[in-house]
Amino acid sequence: IRVHASMNSPPPPVAEFPYLPPAQRDLMVEVLSIVETGLGPQLLPSTVPSDVLSYQNPSGSAHGALDIRYGGRDSTVDFILESWLHCQIPTGALNIATLFVSLNSSTDAPHLLMEFIQGSPTSLVLLLDLIPRKDVVLHPDYLDEFYHQTDLDKQRQVLAKLPQVQPYMSPSLYVRSILSPTAIVVNINCGDGEQTMLEEIIRGKLNMICKEIVQIWLRLCVKTKLLSEVDQDILVKRDSLIKSKAIEIDLEVNLPRMFTPEIASRVVREIKEAYKVQDSGKKFV
Amino acid sequence: IRVHASMNSPPPPVAEFPYLPPAQRDLMVEVLSIVETGLGPQLLPSTVPSDVLSYQNPSGSAHGALDIRYGGRDSTVDFILESWLHCQIPTGALNIATLFVSLNSSTDAPHLLMEFIQGSPTSLVLLLDLIPRKDVVLHPDYLDEFYHQTDLDKQRQVLAKLPQVQPYMSPSLYVRSILSPTAIVVNINCGDGEQTMLEEIIRGKLNMICKEIVQIWLRLCVKTKLLSEVDQDILVKRDSLIKSKAIEIDLEVNLPRMFTPEIASRVVREIKEAYKVQDSGKKFV
Repeated sequence: IRVHASMNSPPPPVAEFPYLPPAQRDLMVEVLSIVETGLGPQLLPSTVPSDVLSYQNPSGSAHGALDIRYGGRDSTVDFILESWLHCQIPTGALNIATLFVSLNSSTDAPHLLMEFIQGSPTSLVLLLDLIPRKDVVLHPDYLDEFYHQTDLDKQRQVLAKLPQVQPYMSPSLYVRSILSPTAIVVNINCGDGEQTMLEEIIRGKLNMICKEIVQIWLRLCVKTKLLSEVDQDILVKRDSLIKSKAIEIDLEVNLPRMFTPEIASRVVREIKEAYKVQDSGKKFV
Repeated sequence: IRVHASMNSPPPPVAEFPYLPPAQRDLMVEVLSIVETGLGPQLLPSTVPSDVLSYQNPSGSAHGALDIRYGGRDSTVDFILESWLHCQIPTGALNIATLFVSLNSSTDAPHLLMEFIQGSPTSLVLLLDLIPRKDVVLHPDYLDEFYHQTDLDKQRQVLAKLPQVQPYMSPSLYVRSILSPTAIVVNINCGDGEQTMLEEIIRGKLNMICKEIVQIWLRLCVKTKLLSEVDQDILVKRDSLIKSKAIEIDLEVNLPRMFTPEIASRVVREIKEAYKVQDSGKKFV
């Protein structure tokens, strides 16, 4: 599956996920296609430089790809971010594939996050959530509109019933806090030698659930809503905190280790620009 | 253990939990004793009428007890609520025991909630949490002060490692939302015939963890904090929503079924007074 492992081959389009096992790759490609078809006319062309669209560490043991496209005028989309990371680890290979669609402040509809984290051929951590833009405790009507009425928990329950599926706890308390009460945060663990079982789950139940949730989100994300100035200020501040914390907790810790500080700085700079988080120019050195 | 089952015996003090299995009763009594010793001088005498301090349904198949004591002047405690419910169900008996300490707006320290829900002799659902007063996504410093620095997640992890312990999901999305990211929300399920195993866990790890968490909370809850008027308004509104939703989702649904609408109205009226939620005078009929 390492179809682009040579340093001299042209960089792969981000959305090809060359290192993902086939079942996951097919699912990610299918979900991206649904999202891009749904949002298509709203998205501007990518402006990510080629050395961030595809990058690797000097020894060639870690590869990454990142694409970001902004939403056009009159779109509710702020940006869509697609990314994958691949690196050799003592137990085999680590693969992370991410889709994050961030909405702007013309709507309070949730952001979309879908992430695969795979550290072994027979297990897969999945994060799939519509990330709330408001404190749902203070805004029960928000919980009702986006989570109750859409029956999102039904999808989570279908997956949770499988004996191979265990809840997954992010080690970060902040990451746990940003997720909705219907978030799918699971470890699908099929045990030694059960690679076929994992593939079956991904091509079966998981495929159905992911597509259903993405379709629900696509219907929600297009509705603009005129917020009061105060509400909009809080929403923007909250969105911004989620993004800067994600960079601080995850990317600034892990990317320099995987790709050298120089390469990590280049990648993080692009993400910070999209996230509207000030780049300190810190080079992780 | 049904030491007060006769209709003619005097009503038991709330904190004796006469229907709880011994291991749970001992733990609840011990935790209450720690909390009451810690808060002691701050608590006013109970004003709950005797027909709410102890109540039962006409057939005598369901029993309940409720006590509420308010915090005195200069206390950070709004009120302490202690309650138990017991009723016969087709599979045996259902027991619910609750401790809820609500703080007032002289502090933003978390409320304390501890609840046992037991529907079979070999399994126990436990909720134990320091309930956040603020949106921790918008206030990462709050998360840091009350949850990171106190290392609360360590306690949760100790329990989660036991093979008999599974995460528990409240069917209510709102209840899921009010809990902190370090909340202990688990089903301890020891399987058929393993009543002794459940008792061992309660008297061992669970006893240690519950007492540790309550001690952490006692240190946090006494610190007053001068909040800005805006922050205080939001905190009061958020607290009030949590309480009115709890009544709406849980008590107003379940108590009338268990105790007849008349008795339920009487009990809910006392709770609404403490929660400062307006009583509509609704008699569930």
